[in-house]
Amino acid sequence: MKKIITIAREFGACGRTVGKSLASRLGYDYWDKAIVTNGQKDSNISLSDLVEFDEKVPTNFSFGLSLFEFNNVELSNQIFRTQNEVIRRMGEHGRCVIVGRNANYILREYDSLLRVFIYADPEFRIAHMEGLKPDYTEEQMRSRLAQVDKAREKYCAYYTHSSFHDVKNYDICLDVGKLGIDTVVDVLYQLAR
Amino acid sequence: MKKIITIAREFGACGRTVGKSLASRLGYDYWDKAIVTNGQKDSNISLSDLVEFDEKVPTNFSFGLSLFEFNNVELSNQIFRTQNEVIRRMGEHGRCVIVGRNANYILREYDSLLRVFIYADPEFRIAHMEGLKPDYTEEQMRSRLAQVDKAREKYCAYYTHSSFHDVKNYDICLDVGKLGIDTVVDVLYQLAR
Repeated sequence: MKKIITIAREFGACGRTVGKSLASRLGYDYWDKAIVTNGQKDSNISLSDLVEFDEKVPTNFSFGLSLFEFNNVELSNQIFRTQNEVIRRMGEHGRCVIVGRNANYILREYDSLLRVFIYADPEFRIAHMEGLKPDYTEEQMRSRLAQVDKAREKYCAYYTHSSFHDVKNYDICLDVGKLGIDTVVDVLYQLAR
Repeated sequence: MKKIITIAREFGACGRTVGKSLASRLGYDYWDKAIVTNGQKDSNISLSDLVEFDEKVPTNFSFGLSLFEFNNVELSNQIFRTQNEVIRRMGEHGRCVIVGRNANYILREYDSLLRVFIYADPEFRIAHMEGLKPDYTEEQMRSRLAQVDKAREKYCAYYTHSSFHDVKNYDICLDVGKLGIDTVVDVLYQLAR
């Protein structure tokens, strides 16, 4: 029985839908954006900063930084540490599905952990986004997809020193566009039980 | 129903065991090293060359090549084209499990294709190798593992212009060390049916 399931996911790859459905079938808690607001209770960081730097590295961190940028890096690291604490508490409690925020890395030493990665080609993800953002043009959606993909890759590289798309960070990786949402949930449900 | 299942795999990650077991349960043909010998029937390449350059890029191909190295590159490309033909014929025929040799890339446009990647951490793979190579020391096994991993990465990069460990090359990726051989076969059997 897997007590903690982490789901890392590409933007638009239905990680939230899969995670919620899986949590519901297993009778587990479901966590994604609530990690951010829970972080606020434990720190003196404003909610707007927590949301702003959620799953992001603040700037181009590889060159000389201005004081403004340096403050942002500090803030981002502080937010990461806060989320780290929140995610560890969720892990201790167990029986939960956690989406995003490098939880697979943060909880990697835990027993009864299933680390999942969900992805799909851009066409599937754009088709899915159309339902969520009907006012976006296709060009805007493609650009948004590329932007969030890039941000998550950098976020993963910065805090875990590994690539977001590298299988070695996960126990199972599924293309939700090829396999379908229901099948992905079924496979994960069987593995968790 | 998936008619073709390709299994790319890390060295020592039991790809052969998983593939054979899956093919047997589905009543499918199983192909791995036989792709090499089938290639011989269609070409005038010697079996020893086919075996020597199987799943390898011949040398450091990025710098100036001697005539000897150039000939090896030519030979390697010719072997890749021959294996390509053999794998395409297997794909046309369908109802088969094909292990290795970039079959996921060669057959990527086919319908009813399930592209699988199987991996495990070095500890699991070394434990598995101990059964196969009882005369190797642990150091020799680690070194062999690193050597074959590197060769397969280069082979994949050279012929497909993508990374061996990138999820995007596959529909599903499974850590056989974490999930276990029987579970991996069960999941793939359910997905194929």
